[in-house]
Amino acid sequence: MTTHKARRKLDHRTRVGRERSARTETRILEAALRVFADMGPDAPTIDDFVQAAGISRGTFYNHFDSVEELLAATSEWTTRESLEAIEKAIEGLEGPALRFGVGLRLFFAKAQADPVWSTFVGRVWKVGGFELPARDFVQGLRLGIFRVSGSEAARDLLFGGIREALLRMGSGRIPAGYGAQMTELCLQALGTDARRIAAVMSHELPGRGTPRRRR
Amino acid sequence: MTTHKARRKLDHRTRVGRERSARTETRILEAALRVFADMGPDAPTIDDFVQAAGISRGTFYNHFDSVEELLAATSEWTTRESLEAIEKAIEGLEGPALRFGVGLRLFFAKAQADPVWSTFVGRVWKVGGFELPARDFVQGLRLGIFRVSGSEAARDLLFGGIREALLRMGSGRIPAGYGAQMTELCLQALGTDARRIAAVMSHELPGRGTPRRRR
Repeated sequence: MTTHKARRKLDHRTRVGRERSARTETRILEAALRVFADMGPDAPTIDDFVQAAGISRGTFYNHFDSVEELLAATSEWTTRESLEAIEKAIEGLEGPALRFGVGLRLFFAKAQADPVWSTFVGRVWKVGGFELPARDFVQGLRLGIFRVSGSEAARDLLFGGIREALLRMGSGRIPAGYGAQMTELCLQALGTDARRIAAVMSHELPGRGTPRRRR
Repeated sequence: MTTHKARRKLDHRTRVGRERSARTETRILEAALRVFADMGPDAPTIDDFVQAAGISRGTFYNHFDSVEELLAATSEWTTRESLEAIEKAIEGLEGPALRFGVGLRLFFAKAQADPVWSTFVGRVWKVGGFELPARDFVQGLRLGIFRVSGSEAARDLLFGGIREALLRMGSGRIPAGYGAQMTELCLQALGTDARRIAAVMSHELPGRGTPRRRR
């Protein structure tokens, strides 16, 4: 075998190895999403993930050093893509109320379509995950479009309420129109005027067509 | 010793024994409140309570059969008295918005005065604990004083938001006026009109005198 051939073979091996490794990592992350959704962020041990992913402890440790590291990776893996998609969908919209409200509608649509994701985010989400909507929240307050008695209290009310909504959506026991209702209530909690709320609720959902007639 | 004296002595022993038993139970409940506030409802083991209360495992089992039973007892012991006091304080007030709002102000005042209680209730409270305010909530909806797009979504938003507020109050990191702001936001979320919200916020807090001037 020539040196060139040997190198190509090695390259091939490396690439195959990397692809296999990436597939294993995805497999661990998918299992972790279910385990964290079931057991919450603190209770699971490494054996829970090893069993759920059908791998050995050695393989687990090739990818992650601890449950904490796995939780961070799962959280990043599962929310970044969704939040970036929402961010992209709302970036062309005019004004913080419309961006915030349509973003929330998209967020709840994702949660309703994927109960495991919804439960996971509801159980492990820290206030840190609130970064994206926070920009429109702050801008809405500055412009007087949102009117609240205290901005920290308002953030906590929304954050706790949205988390509760995610857990309920994860359980699957929600009435029809729940996500839209929750969006409307969040905007109402922020003191948004009725006309602006109506504009948010009737706005075409980017990538999803016009909403069906409400009430 | 006459039979009478023997009986009196036995009565005395029984009474002393019962008093001691009640004191031990209170001591376990007080320790449990701290342990559950620190560790949440699921993580603690019986040894955590045994150690925190400074008792033997045998003594623990004289009073409670399991962590679940202790959690239920602690929850009942610590919330019933507070909720009954609030219930009593608001019963003479006119209309669901005033009762609901003043009740919330009293509830947050209790939470702010007692961070361990606040953390405990925030961590273990299930929707079942929401019974008392629910009556005024339902009546307010029926009378059109509260206007929401969905009653289940509204209940979840408030429940999640109030729990988040309790956890924040338990951490002690809250801005001045946080409890009042949270009350105002809850009423705003329910679509209460501004005049009614102002009436709630300026109402004398039963048993606590008139609130200080706001803004």
